[in-house]
Amino acid sequence: MTRQQLIRLIKEKKSYLCVGLDTDPDKVPEHLQDFKDPAFEFNKEIIQATQNYCVAYKINTAFYEARGAKGWETLEKTAAIIPTSHFRIADAKRGDIGNTSAQYAKTFFETMPFDAVTVAPYMGEDSIRPFLDYPGKWTIVLGLTSNPGARDFELLESGGMAIYERVLQTVSRWGTPENTMFVIGATRAEWFEKVRRLTPQHFYLVPGIGTQGGSLAEVSEKAMNSDGGILVNVSRAIMHASQGVDFASKAAEAAASYQREMIPYAEKISAI
Amino acid sequence: MTRQQLIRLIKEKKSYLCVGLDTDPDKVPEHLQDFKDPAFEFNKEIIQATQNYCVAYKINTAFYEARGAKGWETLEKTAAIIPTSHFRIADAKRGDIGNTSAQYAKTFFETMPFDAVTVAPYMGEDSIRPFLDYPGKWTIVLGLTSNPGARDFELLESGGMAIYERVLQTVSRWGTPENTMFVIGATRAEWFEKVRRLTPQHFYLVPGIGTQGGSLAEVSEKAMNSDGGILVNVSRAIMHASQGVDFASKAAEAAASYQREMIPYAEKISAI
Repeated sequence: MTRQQLIRLIKEKKSYLCVGLDTDPDKVPEHLQDFKDPAFEFNKEIIQATQNYCVAYKINTAFYEARGAKGWETLEKTAAIIPTSHFRIADAKRGDIGNTSAQYAKTFFETMPFDAVTVAPYMGEDSIRPFLDYPGKWTIVLGLTSNPGARDFELLESGGMAIYERVLQTVSRWGTPENTMFVIGATRAEWFEKVRRLTPQHFYLVPGIGTQGGSLAEVSEKAMNSDGGILVNVSRAIMHASQGVDFASKAAEAAASYQREMIPYAEKISAI
Repeated sequence: MTRQQLIRLIKEKKSYLCVGLDTDPDKVPEHLQDFKDPAFEFNKEIIQATQNYCVAYKINTAFYEARGAKGWETLEKTAAIIPTSHFRIADAKRGDIGNTSAQYAKTFFETMPFDAVTVAPYMGEDSIRPFLDYPGKWTIVLGLTSNPGARDFELLESGGMAIYERVLQTVSRWGTPENTMFVIGATRAEWFEKVRRLTPQHFYLVPGIGTQGGSLAEVSEKAMNSDGGILVNVSRAIMHASQGVDFASKAAEAAASYQREMIPYAEKISAI
């Protein structure tokens, strides 16, 4: 999906919602536990219920890997049923020396049909380059994350800037706003002004709304640009809106409620 | 495996060699390609051929993931046949917010029987803590890596130290030398003096010998402490010592040659 296509999708659906599929098999409702692959059934229903309200899905690989090869089967099957009309993100936070990052890029961009993968920047350019080199694919690099640990290294000062700002500044020179996004946590909405100054055109993947406490209104006001420029991820507050047989309809309600809140902001996006 | 057990193993075998299993199915010799799982047959033979010369094996998860769920089956089967006499490392470079890192820790420490997993530090304490919290397991945190990109962020200066030094200093307070190691690349042997000053007792996992150009003698002289204190990883120079039917015997020869070079250094390790 190109940047133009993504912007058009956001404008049309009046939504920049990304639904996170951090599917913990232990939290899949009771009535699905008799299926051969309860996590997949759960994902299928969540996707069907929420697809009208979101423009993206984000699969958190950790929750699948924890079940080993069987979990990877669920991951592959889930990636395959996300509608291609939606932006498909593998939230994998990979990154290694060049020849190894090339294998990770192959994993998510060839073996599976993801549009984007999240990447950790610590190891520098040759760890990120193999992802950027895939035509038509996106690399989403960790900038300022939503967790408490963000203060430990991301906020250290170096040469008059925070490390995460150095990451934004440097990585934005390796890629372009057409193939690079950054993870910027919603729990740090007060930082978006700085972040936008460094990367005015880039899209941000914004976690931290919902369970982690970030405010959708605040993020929308502070982080959006004239192209929209953000994908707001919500995982647990949608997936686990109910733990009962009504989980899918409650997930739809939760997603619809986030989407409704997005309408006035999405309507401000410039015509393209 | 405890720190004492690891030190004893190194002393007994006069080896601190770790054999890397970065198994690319395309590079598995022709005569194994008819097996149902060529990469697994390859790993099995490499492990049998090299186990007398090494104390550890390191599986690079990327090369398995690239084949999806089938690759994860190979990964699981390989992890299961590494002798428990050896230190078993999952080189996965994971790291995410706390609840997600907990899933990654479960993956490598419960679903699979690894002793250690490599972890990226960018996201800070709560991204590393779930790994450290596993009793009897090891967390190997990226410090100064062996790749060119190490200069991009790891070597940025912050408060009179390089970022990687801040990582060593900070992470060594979260864990102990009994459950924490650091990745320090052999291609930067001149930095080991600084590194040892910050973390005199910790073990380092040292990649970059062999194909990447680091010198085993230089690393041994500069990085070892009285407990040994390093595991030197070699992947391609052992695995791909030959691409022919003699790949296993050539791998054994290459591993034996590295081990022989380690004898004088291993003999200096203090009695325990």
